[in-house]
Amino acid sequence: GYGRFGLRYAEQPAGSTASDTFLESRFRLNIDGTAETDGGVQFSARVRMQADDNGALNTAGTAGLNGARFTTQYEGFRVDVGNIAGVIDNLPNYYGFEPGLSAFTGQYTGVDYAFDAYSSTGAGVNGVFAQYAFGDFAVSASFSPEETGAGEQYGISAQYSGANWAVALGYSENDPIGAGADSSDMLVLTASATFGAFTGVIFVGDESSDLDPTGANFDTFYGLSVNYEVGAATDVMFSYGDGSATNDTQSFGLGVVQDLGGGVSLRGGIGQNDTAGVDQMVGDLGVQFNF
Amino acid sequence: GYGRFGLRYAEQPAGSTASDTFLESRFRLNIDGTAETDGGVQFSARVRMQADDNGALNTAGTAGLNGARFTTQYEGFRVDVGNIAGVIDNLPNYYGFEPGLSAFTGQYTGVDYAFDAYSSTGAGVNGVFAQYAFGDFAVSASFSPEETGAGEQYGISAQYSGANWAVALGYSENDPIGAGADSSDMLVLTASATFGAFTGVIFVGDESSDLDPTGANFDTFYGLSVNYEVGAATDVMFSYGDGSATNDTQSFGLGVVQDLGGGVSLRGGIGQNDTAGVDQMVGDLGVQFNF
Amino acid sequence: GYGRFGLRYAEQPAGSTASDTFLESRFRLNIDGTAETDGGVQFSARVRMQADDNGALNTAGTAGLNGARFTTQYEGFRVDVGNIAGVIDNLPNYYGFEPGLSAFTGQYTGVDYAFDAYSSTGAGVNGVFAQYAFGDFAVSASFSPEETGAGEQYGISAQYSGANWAVALGYSENDPIGAGADSSDMLVLTASATFGAFTGVIFVGDESSDLDPTGANFDTFYGLSVNYEVGAATDVMFSYGDGSATNDTQSFGLGVVQDLGGGVSLRGGIGQNDTAGVDQMVGDLGVQFNF
Repeated sequence: GYGRFGLRYAEQPAGSTASDTFLESRFRLNIDGTAETDGGVQFSARVRMQADDNGALNTAGTAGLNGARFTTQYEGFRVDVGNIAGVIDNLPNYYGFEPGLSAFTGQYTGVDYAFDAYSSTGAGVNGVFAQYAFGDFAVSASFSPEETGAGEQYGISAQYSGANWAVALGYSENDPIGAGADSSDMLVLTASATFGAFTGVIFVGDESSDLDPTGANFDTFYGLSVNYEVGAATDVMFSYGDGSATNDTQSFGLGVVQDLGGGVSLRGGIGQNDTAGVDQMVGDLGVQFNF
Repeated sequence: GYGRFGLRYAEQPAGSTASDTFLESRFRLNIDGTAETDGGVQFSARVRMQADDNGALNTAGTAGLNGARFTTQYEGFRVDVGNIAGVIDNLPNYYGFEPGLSAFTGQYTGVDYAFDAYSSTGAGVNGVFAQYAFGDFAVSASFSPEETGAGEQYGISAQYSGANWAVALGYSENDPIGAGADSSDMLVLTASATFGAFTGVIFVGDESSDLDPTGANFDTFYGLSVNYEVGAATDVMFSYGDGSATNDTQSFGLGVVQDLGGGVSLRGGIGQNDTAGVDQMVGDLGVQFNF
Repeated sequence: GYGRFGLRYAEQPAGSTASDTFLESRFRLNIDGTAETDGGVQFSARVRMQADDNGALNTAGTAGLNGARFTTQYEGFRVDVGNIAGVIDNLPNYYGFEPGLSAFTGQYTGVDYAFDAYSSTGAGVNGVFAQYAFGDFAVSASFSPEETGAGEQYGISAQYSGANWAVALGYSENDPIGAGADSSDMLVLTASATFGAFTGVIFVGDESSDLDPTGANFDTFYGLSVNYEVGAATDVMFSYGDGSATNDTQSFGLGVVQDLGGGVSLRGGIGQNDTAGVDQMVGDLGVQFNF
């Protein structure tokens, strides 16, 4: 797990009495149990303990436990059950390089589709994720059953990693049972390449929702992020995300990570979000330490 | 602790829209603290962290913590305080062999009396359990104080284990304070014997409740369960439970446990419950791994 | 962490139906993560898991997790962030010697000011505490931001420890933002001295609140506590606390701790609280074991 704390700035809307600046903090501890059969099949289970600040309220919460995830692995085959990450959440380079102590922005800010994601503080989707890897290639699929009104969701993805580059393609669809016309879906392509100290990621995709026929929120999205190793202990990163829908958030972020040794790093970033013509400055600075 | 996951089937009543089949899962971790005095008295405390699925809702819950249990042991003497198991919950062979990944049935299905039991997900009864063992013989007593309306409960038990056999007798009574006539009680006898690869348990008892004067629920109950070691790594088990009261549930269950080594086992079972003339098929199949 | 359990007695007001005597229990486990930079700066994070009894209800609760505290240390400098103890809660000899298994009383019973304290079962104040120690001297400051109506609180303190004695002085003030006249403050001085097997602490201070202009609760307070090592394994302690305000609680307590080795001790105490002319007898006896 890790701990992190620092100061975070998020410009508040005009007229708001909430605080622009507040204490950012997180405590995260993964509690893992593992076993392996005589035949070499590995089983593991994880519950995460996490405490977070409450942002502009300037308070922090008590630590909590999330839903359990169970994993079975045998050679290139892996199945997760329970509080899973779906194919999009597991897609290589989906998140790219996220600037800031709190990873406050990234290349994905144009995405509106709510894909199945691992929940650090909640129960998660109680689904199944399966992946088969052979050589540099892997294919994945995920499924989560209908919950009350949320829809059943499935997805498939494929990924390839070369020596200095990687590509991945993912598709996910969400279909509420018993309702006619409110399904949504998402298709996304990521690609990364490394040249010496420089790594770049590009990110592009399309999404649609039956509830958004004019595409005010669900439409094409795109972004990129880059990381540059300035020295042995210093990384600088930049991210840009946008989409073609009217309400999509355009974001820029610039961040730096300074390794202090022993699993400790100084991290900070600054960025801007522009949603439907309203600009917001954001930034943070602090320390993260792994344990 | 252990993790387990698999599929479970539970036939739903006619007309129900709930799902017959769902993901069964559990994460359990015992958090133990121990100390020992210079004189050899052992103290320990346990809190359990557990996450479970929510059955036919097809969702799972976040992990939670239960109430603490404190244990003092010195030679044959042991006292538990807090979230205790009472004398019935601690009685040898009370549960017998329970078929299925989720131990979905057992020889005790005819029992209606709510005895003090260790709570894995709640606070428990905040009581006291004491046991004194001398040689192959042991006697126990337990007490839990009056909570709001639930009654104070006490119990006593005795048990003997021979080379290939064991018997145990337990009695418990629940008495709400300040109410005239709604106390309930339970008397139960268990016996087990092992012949080579075969072990059998018989289970018989009687219960009564002032609130059930005609014995529609509280009456004689009985059951049996057997386990047979088919091979070095395979166990097959069967359970049967019933009672003489009109509303008692008659149950049959058949299960198998296949040891995969390393603390991992494949487990499954199938069974049927018959309550007041309504039959229900149940079954499950999955993996359990200890850590 | 530690576990403790025993019996506690607290005289109930005339006419109350609550139980005078109940099971006292606590399970406490500190979950710490630590890291150290190459330059020697230490970082740590703590979350506490705790389960307590519910007193006169004669029930116990499930275990819970509190808010996280993050600590940075470098030579004599230390900064805590999050669920902090403020300068008063951290002041040497503030609590003095507290009699009883459950530390049911102490020299501070005349204090009404609600200083920022580490919360074992809640989220805490999300503040900052800083301390700089040089030789035998140390100075500290703490701050917690405005929460809903609770006020922002700051404090400063200084402390000195000699070979057989120590003194400390602390001041804290609480100021709700946007409200005119309801701030409160507290000034406290502690001093301790050790003569062979005997250690004594004196405690005196003053508090005021704009909401209590007549000083019915907020006024001068004082107390003392002593500890005497009767033998190698036995301590006896006494505490007295009082204040000059009409509603202040005058308290006496007498306690004993018998070390049993291996981190286990037998602890008990007896005392009396007198609040506005109403006397209450209190006492407890039990075992505490560290793990």
